[in-house]
Amino acid sequence: MDLSNYFTKSDLIPAIIQDEKTGEVLMLAYMNQESLKKTIETGYTWFYSRSRKSLWRKGETSGNFQKVIRITPDCDDDALLISVIQTGVACHTGNMSCFYRKGKVMDNG
Amino acid sequence: MDLSNYFTKSDLIPAIIQDEKTGEVLMLAYMNQESLKKTIETGYTWFYSRSRKSLWRKGETSGNFQKVIRITPDCDDDALLISVIQTGVACHTGNMSCFYRKGKVMDNG
Repeated sequence: MDLSNYFTKSDLIPAIIQDEKTGEVLMLAYMNQESLKKTIETGYTWFYSRSRKSLWRKGETSGNFQKVIRITPDCDDDALLISVIQTGVACHTGNMSCFYRKGKVMDNG
Repeated sequence: MDLSNYFTKSDLIPAIIQDEKTGEVLMLAYMNQESLKKTIETGYTWFYSRSRKSLWRKGETSGNFQKVIRITPDCDDDALLISVIQTGVACHTGNMSCFYRKGKVMDNG
């Protein structure tokens, strides 16, 4: 499968991780072409760390892996939506989602 | 409200737009500090176009505005999750979501 068309504008694209069962958005991380390839091959998420400048397998230290159900590109092929089955929690803070400070910037809900 | 802490690593941050009622992820776009400020002030989404290098108000040409219910930062303040009430559809293709090619890259669902 040719994945290069997702990396024509940038070496990194944002991947939105969504819980397959609840629809909750769990986190956003970045993928380069190699991490997307590894994700497809292994069936578990791999990302690219901008700070460490290296690939990382989600859950490698925490054990909180993400089994991939579906990867969907957006209309112009520069973002990915990834549905997963999350083991444990997604956030390093111990919260299920990295977006746990609900409405912190604005809240009209 | 000081918004500068969301733009310390980069001038642009990704904003995930999610349908408040259905939980469907509608699109991903980028915000700079000015577009986030306008979004909060007006209650409707404004983004920054990387290709046109300018602010744009979502729905300005299509009429498909996004009323903002909630803006939530992620754990390290470099991505935003925005819950909206979408007028019409979110995608310029006429689809509700920009992620309409469900499972195109991978599908084990």
